[in-house]
Amino acid sequence: MTIEIGTTIKSRPSDLSATDAAAAIASGELTSEKLVESCLERIEERDADVLAWAHLDADNALMQARAADAVRPLGPLHGVPVGLKDIIDAFDMPTGFNSPIYTQHTPRADSACAALIRNVGGIVFGKTVTTEFANRHPGPTRNPHDPARTPGGSSSGSAAAVADRQVPLAVGTQTSGSIIRPSAFCGVVGYKPSFGEISRVGVKQQSGSLDTLGLCARSVGDIELLRAVLTATPYEPVSPSGFGVRIAVCRPPEWDKAGAPARASVEKAAADIGNAGAGIVDVELPPTLFDGWLDVHRRIANFEGARNFGFEKAHYKDKLSKALYEGRIQDGERCTMDEYIAAQRKAEKMRAWMDEAFEGFDAILTLSAAGEAPVGQGDTGNATFNSLWTLLYTPCITLPSGVGPAGMPLGIQLIGRRFEDERLFAIASTVEDLFKAR
Amino acid sequence: MTIEIGTTIKSRPSDLSATDAAAAIASGELTSEKLVESCLERIEERDADVLAWAHLDADNALMQARAADAVRPLGPLHGVPVGLKDIIDAFDMPTGFNSPIYTQHTPRADSACAALIRNVGGIVFGKTVTTEFANRHPGPTRNPHDPARTPGGSSSGSAAAVADRQVPLAVGTQTSGSIIRPSAFCGVVGYKPSFGEISRVGVKQQSGSLDTLGLCARSVGDIELLRAVLTATPYEPVSPSGFGVRIAVCRPPEWDKAGAPARASVEKAAADIGNAGAGIVDVELPPTLFDGWLDVHRRIANFEGARNFGFEKAHYKDKLSKALYEGRIQDGERCTMDEYIAAQRKAEKMRAWMDEAFEGFDAILTLSAAGEAPVGQGDTGNATFNSLWTLLYTPCITLPSGVGPAGMPLGIQLIGRRFEDERLFAIASTVEDLFKAR
Repeated sequence: MTIEIGTTIKSRPSDLSATDAAAAIASGELTSEKLVESCLERIEERDADVLAWAHLDADNALMQARAADAVRPLGPLHGVPVGLKDIIDAFDMPTGFNSPIYTQHTPRADSACAALIRNVGGIVFGKTVTTEFANRHPGPTRNPHDPARTPGGSSSGSAAAVADRQVPLAVGTQTSGSIIRPSAFCGVVGYKPSFGEISRVGVKQQSGSLDTLGLCARSVGDIELLRAVLTATPYEPVSPSGFGVRIAVCRPPEWDKAGAPARASVEKAAADIGNAGAGIVDVELPPTLFDGWLDVHRRIANFEGARNFGFEKAHYKDKLSKALYEGRIQDGERCTMDEYIAAQRKAEKMRAWMDEAFEGFDAILTLSAAGEAPVGQGDTGNATFNSLWTLLYTPCITLPSGVGPAGMPLGIQLIGRRFEDERLFAIASTVEDLFKAR
Repeated sequence: MTIEIGTTIKSRPSDLSATDAAAAIASGELTSEKLVESCLERIEERDADVLAWAHLDADNALMQARAADAVRPLGPLHGVPVGLKDIIDAFDMPTGFNSPIYTQHTPRADSACAALIRNVGGIVFGKTVTTEFANRHPGPTRNPHDPARTPGGSSSGSAAAVADRQVPLAVGTQTSGSIIRPSAFCGVVGYKPSFGEISRVGVKQQSGSLDTLGLCARSVGDIELLRAVLTATPYEPVSPSGFGVRIAVCRPPEWDKAGAPARASVEKAAADIGNAGAGIVDVELPPTLFDGWLDVHRRIANFEGARNFGFEKAHYKDKLSKALYEGRIQDGERCTMDEYIAAQRKAEKMRAWMDEAFEGFDAILTLSAAGEAPVGQGDTGNATFNSLWTLLYTPCITLPSGVGPAGMPLGIQLIGRRFEDERLFAIASTVEDLFKAR
């Protein structure tokens, strides 16, 4: 089956963007059932190589699609399938957390985001593979560009499924770098909103102060669509900002730990954006305030994680991975209340500094990850270039910025001021267009 | 059965403070089984009048008690029963949220706080009545001092059961005034910690930005004990501050909406504390920043609530109360993203102002509620004197401060600087001793 949307001939519905698919369904050019069938076909071809799905019930997905086709569009996502990371509940599917503790666990209720997707006619398509409890212990998913490599984590299946055109949209979470890094490794657009904007009801918690829901898509426009759905706000795509903006390049203290190709990709993006007319400045994080930020993030995440996994630790200690138990949990048990509070106070000061710094520029440009996705499935990669921005509560977008020496995707990260996500979309879509043209 | 602890003859184990009960169990003077039996006896005598329990399985409580008696004490709460508000999960009990939607719902896992209580040998005794989803629609619980009056809400059963000596400790939550108000109405000590200190895993969420777990007990010392357990930190009771402190009396703009007896109770507390040697000052909330704070609280709570109840709204709209659906949910649907973000930004400015204001004093003294518990069960009372402090993320303690003209309890509220909960305990225990002596 082929379908023509506008002037572009797409080979199959599963290749469509969410925005185009929703428009085609609304106009009657496409049905949700055909779209879901097309996604299922793509998965059948590719699943042995990618392994992005923790749970996928074709009958359930098709039933939802036929129900959507039977009514007039309820909203801007009508009939479009969305994958949910398998730490996010749907009432009609198991939630497994990639943990042997929770096999056969089906929650009583939808998460807020599953309910919000269904509320506008969207299809809760299936559950994408997560690392264990969105921590470090990896799941089976492979990078769709090279099955010998990691897709990144913890939202491994969400990034891989979207990159592989198995589904146009997926929801994930980020506590350190779990949206931006896998999105960069898989070559998709990843978005972590301003902290607090998307409800975490029905999402397994690691760190209440850091866990942030985020999105994977193949365009900034699709990210905007799904964000409107998940915040239950009107969908009004922003106009691109153009290049009358100031972009601050951030080379954090850990800059030299990134590979040369990743650093070069940021520098080239800065040069291209500057040549297009934008003002390019540098932003330096003042060492007196930002030295030790990794410990601030670690103390908050681990102090909270050690308490949040209290039930699993008490009943199923032997079913927790060493990475989780000896890492987050035991480290968090060693963290004192005074250390935790000092970390929280320092994080607030860092956030206040960053908020003021945005008086001097419109967005920050920095690394999305240390480089291309590493070979091997044992480790999902380094979150160093993401955790700071999770801690700072700022909105972040990673855009595919080319390929590295191994032919794998590279990304660059754009960061906006907290609560100014729409301004970040306007800049990111401008840069996205620039990258497409180069 | 009678038991002698130190020099005080108590009529029955259920009258003991948690601290005394834990000490008696640790020393072998008392067993957890005897304590639990005594609580069950008290409930049997009183349940028809108070109706504090949503779920109570005597066999389960006794089984946990015998298991505690069979081992050496695991921690400072060993063998002591704790009630959990019925929006907080325990794996071996139903969670009903006081909603017809969730009859027969037993969660898969313990909440973090249930696991932390069990982890130190505490007994998860039963589930206390909540208003519907911790919102406004009341449950059946009555004020133990007068069954014609409300116990307050939303942590109605937690406050009533502790006040009625049915259990020494209970956990609740506060989004507006749901710990402090019922504690004041029932004449117990209520504590809302600094925002973020006690894990909300396994707790039904209304507002991620405001929901705060809190505690009910019959003494500041017992609050300290349970806080140590729920933060998984060492239990080290603080020394009373004495009166070498500065206390700021806060008469908020809504002061005149409180009854004369409640206002007089605050003024008398200020005079007594001042006569004992403390410095008494006034703190005024600057109108340019604090005018409209009720709308700030409402917008955050309702914007988030409308999204958080997405599943219940989609599937069970007719089983939601009018108070919840037409109040929080529909009001939250009308709130725009810009209004929500403006409210979040204003709340952060108010928090920063308050944090600096604490340079000038050690604690704030203000109203816990508008007066004595009102007659009738249809409304749990006015949260105006609590919501501001929930919004400001500051730790709060209400102490019983006498009785009003109807013979019902009055309370006064002490407020500390965010993250300085232990300093607040030191001041509150000083004031508690002063009140006992007067």
